Amino acid sequence: MRDALVAAAFQLFLERGYEQTTVDDIVALAGVGRRSFFRYFPSKEDVVFPDHERCLADMTAFLSAGGDEDEPVQRVCDAARLVLRMYAENPTFSVQRYRLTKKVPGLRAYELSVVWRYERALAEYLRGRYAGRPDGTLRADVVAAAVVAAHNNALRSWLRSDGQGDADTAVDHALGYAQASFGDSPGGAPATEQEDVVVVISRRGAPMWRVVQEIESTFGRD
Amino acid sequence: MRDALVAAAFQLFLERGYEQTTVDDIVALAGVGRRSFFRYFPSKEDVVFPDHERCLADMTAFLSAGGDEDEPVQRVCDAARLVLRMYAENPTFSVQRYRLTKKVPGLRAYELSVVWRYERALAEYLRGRYAGRPDGTLRADVVAAAVVAAHNNALRSWLRSDGQGDADTAVDHALGYAQASFGDSPGGAPATEQEDVVVVISRRGAPMWRVVQEIESTFGRD
Repeated sequence: MRDALVAAAFQLFLERGYEQTTVDDIVALAGVGRRSFFRYFPSKEDVVFPDHERCLADMTAFLSAGGDEDEPVQRVCDAARLVLRMYAENPTFSVQRYRLTKKVPGLRAYELSVVWRYERALAEYLRGRYAGRPDGTLRADVVAAAVVAAHNNALRSWLRSDGQGDADTAVDHALGYAQASFGDSPGGAPATEQEDVVVVISRRGAPMWRVVQEIESTFGRD
Repeated sequence: MRDALVAAAFQLFLERGYEQTTVDDIVALAGVGRRSFFRYFPSKEDVVFPDHERCLADMTAFLSAGGDEDEPVQRVCDAARLVLRMYAENPTFSVQRYRLTKKVPGLRAYELSVVWRYERALAEYLRGRYAGRPDGTLRADVVAAAVVAAHNNALRSWLRSDGQGDADTAVDHALGYAQASFGDSPGGAPATEQEDVVVVISRRGAPMWRVVQEIESTFGRD
C-alpha cells in the first residue's frame, strides 16, 4: 500500500504538478482512504522522500556498529554511500524526484532538512570518535560537512545526467577527495609497513592542497 | 519602522512564543498597519532573520570585488566573517534568536535554507576561481561546506555561551583549521622566500591530518 501511494503521488505530481495535487487526489488514485496515507506519511512532502527515514536509521545503525579499529573518515564515507545506494536503487524515480525538487521551493527546504539530518548523524559519530582530541567537535563538524558536500556533488552530477553513468565511481572519486583531505590515506599501508617513512619536499608557500596531493601520490606509490 | 517591527516581534515572541504570535499582534504593538509589515518582510519567519538578505548581498559583493591575486580559500573565509560580524553586532538579539530558532522547527528549516544560500554563494565564487582545474566544482563545493561548517561551529559555541567570550578569536581559529586543510598556509611566506623548501618526514600510514598539521607547523615556524 505504501508503494502504491508513492506511485500514485508521483504519477499525479508529474501530470499536474506538485502544488496542484492534494492528498485527496493521491488517495483517490491509489484507492485507499486518507487515514491510510497519513499512517505512512506525516505530510504530502514526506511522500516525495519515502525512503529517507529508513536510510537515516540504517546510517545510524551502521555508524553505531563500527569499532575503534575503523578509521573515522573512512567510516563516515561508507555511511554516506548508503544514501547513494538508496538513490541508485531506482534511478528513474530518483531523477523524477530531483527534477520535481528543483521546481518546488517547499520540497527544496524539506530536502535541506534531510541533508542536515544526515550531516548531523555523521558529525555525532565523529564527535564521539574525536572526543578528547583538541578541536574534536570542530574537526567532526567540518569533516561531516565536507563528506556530505563531496557525496552530493557526485550525486547531483549523476542526477543531472538523468541517472546515466556510473554513480558509484563518481561518488567513490568524490569521497576519495574528502578522505585525502582529512582521513588516513585510502587503502593505507598495512601495519607491518607502518614504520616506513615518507619524505616530502615542498616549496614553502605551496598551497596546502598541492602538498596533500603530493603526499597522497607518494603514499599510493608502489 | 523596520527596526520597530523587529523589536515588537521579538518582544512578543519572547513573551508568548513564536507560534502564538500573529503578524496582527506585531503590527498592533508596533502601531503600524499590516501592509507596512509585508513591505519589509515577506512572512513572519523573515522578521526573525531581518539582516540575512543584506548580509548575503554584502557577501556576494565582497566576493565579486576580489581579484586573481586573492587566495580563494582565504577570500571565502573573509566572506564568512561578514556573517559573524552581523551576529556579533548585536549579541543580545543574536542569542535570543538562537534560543528561539532551536525551539521552533519552522525557523530551523528557514535557517537551514539561509545557511544553504551562504554556502552556495561561497561555492559559486570558488567554482569560478577553480574553473578549468580538475575536480574544480568538487573542490569548490567541499571547501565551501567546510568553511561554513567551521564558521558555524564557532558561531554556535559563542551563541551557546550567551554571547560571552571572543567570537572573533573563536571564528578565526575555526576558519584557520579549514584553511589549513584546503588553502594556502595562512600568512604564508612572502614571495622572496617562496623557493625555500620544506622537508617533512612522516611514517607511512600516518593519518593525513597529522601530516598536514606537521607541515602547517613547519610552514609556520620561524
